Amino acid sequence: MKRPAAANRESFRAFVSLQTRWADNDEYGHMNNATYLSLFDTALSLWQMQNGLDIRGPQALRFLVVESGCKYHAEIGFPDALTAGLRLAHLGTSSYRVEIGLFRGDSAQAAAEGFFAQVLVDNSTASPRPIPDAVRKTLSQLLPVT
Amino acid sequence: MKRPAAANRESFRAFVSLQTRWADNDEYGHMNNATYLSLFDTALSLWQMQNGLDIRGPQALRFLVVESGCKYHAEIGFPDALTAGLRLAHLGTSSYRVEIGLFRGDSAQAAAEGFFAQVLVDNSTASPRPIPDAVRKTLSQLLPVT
Amino acid sequence: MKRPAAANRESFRAFVSLQTRWADNDEYGHMNNATYLSLFDTALSLWQMQNGLDIRGPQALRFLVVESGCKYHAEIGFPDALTAGLRLAHLGTSSYRVEIGLFRGDSAQAAAEGFFAQVLVDNSTASPRPIPDAVRKTLSQLLPVT
Amino acid sequence: MKRPAAANRESFRAFVSLQTRWADNDEYGHMNNATYLSLFDTALSLWQMQNGLDIRGPQALRFLVVESGCKYHAEIGFPDALTAGLRLAHLGTSSYRVEIGLFRGDSAQAAAEGFFAQVLVDNSTASPRPIPDAVRKTLSQLLPVT
Repeated sequence: MKRPAAANRESFRAFVSLQTRWADNDEYGHMNNATYLSLFDTALSLWQMQNGLDIRGPQALRFLVVESGCKYHAEIGFPDALTAGLRLAHLGTSSYRVEIGLFRGDSAQAAAEGFFAQVLVDNSTASPRPIPDAVRKTLSQLLPVT
Repeated sequence: MKRPAAANRESFRAFVSLQTRWADNDEYGHMNNATYLSLFDTALSLWQMQNGLDIRGPQALRFLVVESGCKYHAEIGFPDALTAGLRLAHLGTSSYRVEIGLFRGDSAQAAAEGFFAQVLVDNSTASPRPIPDAVRKTLSQLLPVT
Repeated sequence: MKRPAAANRESFRAFVSLQTRWADNDEYGHMNNATYLSLFDTALSLWQMQNGLDIRGPQALRFLVVESGCKYHAEIGFPDALTAGLRLAHLGTSSYRVEIGLFRGDSAQAAAEGFFAQVLVDNSTASPRPIPDAVRKTLSQLLPVT
Repeated sequence: MKRPAAANRESFRAFVSLQTRWADNDEYGHMNNATYLSLFDTALSLWQMQNGLDIRGPQALRFLVVESGCKYHAEIGFPDALTAGLRLAHLGTSSYRVEIGLFRGDSAQAAAEGFFAQVLVDNSTASPRPIPDAVRKTLSQLLPVT
């Protein structure tokens, strides 16, 4: 099981600073595996809100997570200061795949890389619905430069 | 993005009962995405300890998680009573891939399916080391019946 | 700072079984201080729902926590099986104080004791409102026998 | 149950910036009660490490929490930016009581106020031991100016 090469900062399009907490470390003295996803969640939500996407409240855009994943390259944990890099690997009619790199301090290489595959659903029926143009425009800022 | 068919209980080899908590639900009223991994962690750890594997303390087996993932088929959350099903998809020289299905109440189909790819490492050097025979024998109980 | 004597099981009126999780332990190898409150929350919520109190959804009773506290008598943590004991120390017009004891395995003495002071508030205005008679009757099951 | 007046920033001696996370909010849409303690923990630990106290690793100072508490004055939650204020209410031979105020954004009044009563214990025996002079000197920076 060869570990893949870790992504560099330049491969991401937006960045969010993240703080670790005392309780993030489990009894192995490093960040618990589940906590990485909680940080991915936070980074993506903060970026979406900072870019005008309404993801809270009754009229909010409801992006359902259908799949998530994480590759752990190097151990991190409290009290590390972290930076999350964000990029879009796919932007479909009603879904997207966002990839997140987690960087420790000033490190150029990601200590962890994860993704969320999300589908925009109707708030009442939970059925997939097309991503509105304005939202698509915002999300496409995270697409790779071609 | 078509959702894959959810796994059935029969495809798993061991089961662990899991409890949800009030704080597991996020403001969407369902279990937060990261919490699923925390439940996978708990199910696997409990099974390992119940089967005599020493995963805590200074002389413990140290299985490093190199990759994790989760597919979310149906929403679950507090106060659901859950059952985790466990099976091994791969058992290599120093690594394995364990798959976990999360079942809500008496449901026959998994509400979520996840995995951990783990490598046994030396406690001091953190380098991969072969899984000892006794440990391999225990873990192989989770392999599919052929 | 002398530690107070720990409460016995007999001093509580209702009991809820609780499960610990791998991630509950922090790097000291014992349950993180904050997790105790999460378990108190869960025990009280489960008891309220099992006794017919509607604490979720748009028409739910909304009990706001105005104060909480916890005394830690003995260390507990994953993989301990726990039992929470519940009792009411005060039942006022619109508020109550519930006390929770956390017992490890079959131990007769609480490993931790906590409380929540809660006020019933209006769902729209968040102003205190009188506890309805039916709810008061349910909660009074947790009052000490006199 | 009258809510006490909230503490002002001026009554604290040191400050730590804290970040909220998506998963901090429970299904009421505000920060879960237990998460406040996790933030107190983090603020105190960061301050201790920034001031040279060794609280991690095998030779670390081990401050055991014997009691904690929190008064909730106003609701906070993700995505609020928070500041924790720290002060010492008591510094004894082997114990202290640290009080923490949690401030939302630029607010002058604490949204929540909590405390930890902690005892310095021997790493092997867990018995109380006197706080060393150098540590006492560091901690006394958090005592009120007289």
